[in-house]
Amino acid sequence: MASYKLLLLPGDGIGPEVAGGLQVVLDALKETGLATFETETDLVGGCALDAHGVPLSDETLSRAKAADAILLGAVGGPKWAGVAYENRPEAGLLRLRKDLDLFANLRPAICYPALAEASALKRELVEGLDIMIVRELTGGVYFGEPKEITTLPDGSKRAVDTQVYTTGEIERIARVAFDLAGKRSGRVASAEKHNVMKSGVLWKEVVTKLHAEHYADIQLEHILADNCAMQLVRRPKQFDVLVTDNLFGDVLSDLAAMLTGSLGMLPSASLGAVDDSGLRRALYEPCHGSAPDIAGQDKANPIAMIGSLTMCLRYSFGLGDAADALDGAITDALASGARTADIAGASANPMGTRAMASAVADAL
Amino acid sequence: MASYKLLLLPGDGIGPEVAGGLQVVLDALKETGLATFETETDLVGGCALDAHGVPLSDETLSRAKAADAILLGAVGGPKWAGVAYENRPEAGLLRLRKDLDLFANLRPAICYPALAEASALKRELVEGLDIMIVRELTGGVYFGEPKEITTLPDGSKRAVDTQVYTTGEIERIARVAFDLAGKRSGRVASAEKHNVMKSGVLWKEVVTKLHAEHYADIQLEHILADNCAMQLVRRPKQFDVLVTDNLFGDVLSDLAAMLTGSLGMLPSASLGAVDDSGLRRALYEPCHGSAPDIAGQDKANPIAMIGSLTMCLRYSFGLGDAADALDGAITDALASGARTADIAGASANPMGTRAMASAVADAL
Ligand SMILES: CC(C)[C@H](C(=O)O)[C@@H](O)C(=O)O
Ligand SMILES: CC(C)[C@H](C(=O)O)[C@@H](O)C(=O)O
Repeated sequence: MASYKLLLLPGDGIGPEVAGGLQVVLDALKETGLATFETETDLVGGCALDAHGVPLSDETLSRAKAADAILLGAVGGPKWAGVAYENRPEAGLLRLRKDLDLFANLRPAICYPALAEASALKRELVEGLDIMIVRELTGGVYFGEPKEITTLPDGSKRAVDTQVYTTGEIERIARVAFDLAGKRSGRVASAEKHNVMKSGVLWKEVVTKLHAEHYADIQLEHILADNCAMQLVRRPKQFDVLVTDNLFGDVLSDLAAMLTGSLGMLPSASLGAVDDSGLRRALYEPCHGSAPDIAGQDKANPIAMIGSLTMCLRYSFGLGDAADALDGAITDALASGARTADIAGASANPMGTRAMASAVADAL
Repeated sequence: MASYKLLLLPGDGIGPEVAGGLQVVLDALKETGLATFETETDLVGGCALDAHGVPLSDETLSRAKAADAILLGAVGGPKWAGVAYENRPEAGLLRLRKDLDLFANLRPAICYPALAEASALKRELVEGLDIMIVRELTGGVYFGEPKEITTLPDGSKRAVDTQVYTTGEIERIARVAFDLAGKRSGRVASAEKHNVMKSGVLWKEVVTKLHAEHYADIQLEHILADNCAMQLVRRPKQFDVLVTDNLFGDVLSDLAAMLTGSLGMLPSASLGAVDDSGLRRALYEPCHGSAPDIAGQDKANPIAMIGSLTMCLRYSFGLGDAADALDGAITDALASGARTADIAGASANPMGTRAMASAVADAL
């Protein structure tokens, strides 16, 4: 049985707790013989800043480059609200994404049948929802230069961020979306604002050309990002794969996640290109963020973190069987009534993070 | 009785139909003696492009500057999908906004009780919803330079858009939000992405300072734009006034509008600064867009257009009584069962645009 090198970056807030839950599942996986892992643990975000004065140290970055995959909890929190822009916890995560060239962010928005009632939307609109959002993650307004605040002669200030996209950046993320769609329903929606942004014009042009030349069998729809937000609320099931840029992807993927009513359940994958040796850099993390309000209380739902491992097994290691088994264990645990507070509804006795992780591990 | 000079710009798609509905109401208003108007009608968007080769002619712009207020229907449609970027129908609207310095876009998201069932959200989440989104409209990534597509040495392309905000631009839109909040519930949420954008950093800084110095009695909350999208779905009634930049405002205001289930009912106002003579430039338009799929079929709901006149009476002319009377007429028409197809639900016999406008006029 192959053994994979995982780098665990629990991070801040509820990160360490959900990473603890993940460890329980990793141990169980090992016992079943489905897969084994060598895990190393390190710091990222606010905790790294506290320890090393930077939100991601060079040593941690080297470890991340050497790992077969990275599993990250969450970064950030009010404790670091006052730190310099360059040192904010999020900068650690952004550096990981950028330096590892993790350009493809896959965010499934799945509505778990047992939890459809937890959605703000009417049940019939979200039941069975299964969208894959493909967000470009290393370009756009997050990274473009100039990105600065300057002081004007009259003492007031001027802030600039730059949205930049090249043909190559758009093409490679669109490929990921089309390839995924080929294994799903065969439908891609591409969201931009070509009516006001030049990057939107180029985005639409490149996606259209790639589609015509290489993916004519996939059904492609262009949609304006504002309309996309509306359609996600109005009739979310019209979407299958949705590809978009870094900034729109940030907002639309969070929106889609919230629609499902299962935010604490949703994992994500951030993937690099496949290199000459057939490997691809990858980072997996839950969608939920650091949730400082419930940190340290054994309340957080570990399923998004565990689901991130499922994605890791599937996308990084090609261990489809192990991934299916783990997905099945999550479903079984839920079916047997296991609920953390976020998904408990009116239930009297929600379980804690550890107990939920154990329920999944036991179901394995 | 004072008479006001209105410039009517019906535009494209369903624009001319809803503007026709508006005319019915303007006539009725005149009869009641509540207010009289001198109206001029002109072209903007695709129809202007067809007629004059530009989506907004200099003559029309002059007329817009001379008018006391502008009422616009909608611009754009698939017919003009292929035209040059500079000449697309939307460019006409953007030029109006920019050249008249209409920096404050007010977008109420109100859930009409009679229509709560039409929302995708559960009734209890949206019933009574009344949010005012204040979107900055003449800055940010819509207008910043450079804004271009260049060809790289290898023949591939590079697109750039620039998000720019100055202290002054942020301050004046934040004032509008705080002032409005003072007349409502006294709460403002300000949405940006200060964790990844320098413009977000400046935005938060300026709003915080203005609040501390001049609006300490207003309750201010800062929220990340991605989280804001989530919270709008999860618990929309937590918001009262929501202030944000041009791009986030575009997406979040459409999202909020869709939540209400009453998209065809929602008006908007785009306001300039008050000048030395106490006047302010203003443009009023429905939120719904040109809806080319139903254009020319007498199906469109004219209420958003009529509601835009209500906003005009209130914000441009200080005619609170006339505005209240018109709002009351809309409510009465709805209460008496008047429904266009978009809000008819399962009702067998929805009425047309004209009939709905007449129902409102009769109720006046
Ligand atoms: C933490 C933050 C920098 C990040 C982002 O904006 O990309 C987060 O919101 C996300 O979506 O992963
Ligand atoms: C028509 C388009 C340019 C416009 C915008 O993006 O501002 C529209 O979506 C709006 O929100 O008023």
